Amino acid sequence: MGDKVAGSEHRGETTGKLRDFGAGIVDLIYKGKNPSFEAPTRARSNIKYDEKEAILKLGGGKEERSFINVAQSKKFMQTIAVASKCNTFLKENLHTSIRGLYYQLKLSLGEDVDENLFDEQSESNPLIEDLEVALGVKREDLNLSADRKGFLAGNVRIIDRFGDERLEIDGTKQGRGGWPIPSDVDNGIEFVDVKAKAVLVVEKDAIWQRLNEDQFWKKENMILITPKGQASRGTRRLIRKLSDMVLPVYVFNDCDAWGWYIYWTIKTGSMNLAYISSEIATPGARFLGVTMADIERYDFLKKLTIKANEVDLKRAQEMLSYPWINRHKEWVGELKKVIQTKTKLEQDSLQGPRLTFIGDYIRDKVRGQDFLP
Amino acid sequence: MGDKVAGSEHRGETTGKLRDFGAGIVDLIYKGKNPSFEAPTRARSNIKYDEKEAILKLGGGKEERSFINVAQSKKFMQTIAVASKCNTFLKENLHTSIRGLYYQLKLSLGEDVDENLFDEQSESNPLIEDLEVALGVKREDLNLSADRKGFLAGNVRIIDRFGDERLEIDGTKQGRGGWPIPSDVDNGIEFVDVKAKAVLVVEKDAIWQRLNEDQFWKKENMILITPKGQASRGTRRLIRKLSDMVLPVYVFNDCDAWGWYIYWTIKTGSMNLAYISSEIATPGARFLGVTMADIERYDFLKKLTIKANEVDLKRAQEMLSYPWINRHKEWVGELKKVIQTKTKLEQDSLQGPRLTFIGDYIRDKVRGQDFLP
Repeated sequence: MGDKVAGSEHRGETTGKLRDFGAGIVDLIYKGKNPSFEAPTRARSNIKYDEKEAILKLGGGKEERSFINVAQSKKFMQTIAVASKCNTFLKENLHTSIRGLYYQLKLSLGEDVDENLFDEQSESNPLIEDLEVALGVKREDLNLSADRKGFLAGNVRIIDRFGDERLEIDGTKQGRGGWPIPSDVDNGIEFVDVKAKAVLVVEKDAIWQRLNEDQFWKKENMILITPKGQASRGTRRLIRKLSDMVLPVYVFNDCDAWGWYIYWTIKTGSMNLAYISSEIATPGARFLGVTMADIERYDFLKKLTIKANEVDLKRAQEMLSYPWINRHKEWVGELKKVIQTKTKLEQDSLQGPRLTFIGDYIRDKVRGQDFLP
Repeated sequence: MGDKVAGSEHRGETTGKLRDFGAGIVDLIYKGKNPSFEAPTRARSNIKYDEKEAILKLGGGKEERSFINVAQSKKFMQTIAVASKCNTFLKENLHTSIRGLYYQLKLSLGEDVDENLFDEQSESNPLIEDLEVALGVKREDLNLSADRKGFLAGNVRIIDRFGDERLEIDGTKQGRGGWPIPSDVDNGIEFVDVKAKAVLVVEKDAIWQRLNEDQFWKKENMILITPKGQASRGTRRLIRKLSDMVLPVYVFNDCDAWGWYIYWTIKTGSMNLAYISSEIATPGARFLGVTMADIERYDFLKKLTIKANEVDLKRAQEMLSYPWINRHKEWVGELKKVIQTKTKLEQDSLQGPRLTFIGDYIRDKVRGQDFLP
């Protein structure tokens, strides 16, 4: 594979975009016009599956937010307050969570003013999304940290420019813990010397730990990632960046609608985050298992199936209706089998015969290139 | 503080205990007696607050589990199966989760036998606890991994004997991520060169990240730990180990019954895990904040209080009834204030005036040694 480097510093760019955003509004004011800005609509009706890119995306719908509009005036003012705070965070070179931002906004009219610009965090969250789409940046680029989740081990070196230090983190020397995947994997961070030849994403941390103990990532020269359930924004972005370095991405999840949906979220992006799919979705990802078909192949699994509950079955039915899923006959077959047999399987069950069987299972699938699309 | 070393290898000892356990049962069989073993009772009635040690502990109550007893026969057999599996894991030097163990037990009568030794994981969980108390070991010593959660940064070096490697992890060089605290911080792991002078436990990961970015752990020479909400077994054990190295432990949580209960769990242990309090509780821990009294001291907090809901108030009422809490008049006052004013506060709110205020708040409290017991 050779040595590859991925950097994607957005910070300078974001500051520029914020400046242009503010200048545009000031300009409208000076011209005696109604201050306003335009942003792509994030409503469900404007979310499309893009067949060419094979990801969920926003369509062409746009919305205007303007100040002189009874329904929008407060929201407009709030969005400007959010932009102003983020601009300060970027200048200070400090990060906070959207909860931290919310508390700053609560005090933004001063401690002595009885009126609140914001009453609930639920008011500020959609405005952050407004700003992300209006500027065409991610919240991480605005120094807002999302929840972090997930771990990595494998042959990659990570450069973390943290404070005034330039730390080098060796993905092969993280021991039992692994490297915790941060919220922002773009700004101040680089992935260099990627010597691994593939990426294996494993739904559960317990299974990641099992494979890590077996040094599976070393033996197979794969980067071993667990999102710990549904993948965080940071973990999805990291998977995408590794995929952009031309590493194949294999996903190994539970055999149920939930585990499968985690795969689809990684692959095509999710509806909630469709506005950043082009940065965090990995259309080239392939599904390694667990599949209902595995029950035929591995006899012991018959004894380890679990009864699917109502939620599982409802979710499977929903997935059958998604055009980006039901275009694949393999997935239609799998989903129908869940619904017909009312059973599911956990990836943990592959430890049944012996703890190290789970690695053999993965090796078999990879050697046979036995994946679902 | 000087350089300190903490190792606490239990593996050899545990294998010996398992062997003795098995030998005891075999011996009874050869003598023609009913195979049985004795274990301390974990029922609520046998959980006491030990005033001298200041932790929750099991009392003297014991229970016998025996084979020739209609009510116990299956459970007895199952416990022996659990012990046998753990013995194998120790021999193989491999770890798994209790879910992984469960799937092995499901197959333990062979793939072809229709009868299951276990139907549900809820059957195997209490048997693992039985075995822990009967042997006087933690499940981590039996190579069973509990969920891991929590991160650390600060002046401590960690030796992780992982596979055939001896990895050295520098707690000051973990960057934005920190070191993820594993399930087992006793076997194959050591904390050496502890140059920090105190431990600061911070409830939320977002606040840990904020303080980590400010290099608070470096400036104040503290070990900065977040349990990410309720503390895992591994994180509680680690805090206790650092306390045993004579580091003072300060806990900084939300100002509500939930945040306060997280503190009490770290300090005295919890009822569910009373059987291992003597290893995972840290009676010397002190509470730094956030307190209801802070509202009087920091004017801006008045604007940032949140309405306490019914669950908060009920939990506060319960805590008032616990003798290990209501012996402290400071805590009675705080809990009553929550109930009277029906308000609470988040630690995040201390970022209101500026992002770095949170560090100043902690420094003030530590300098004034302004803690709750």
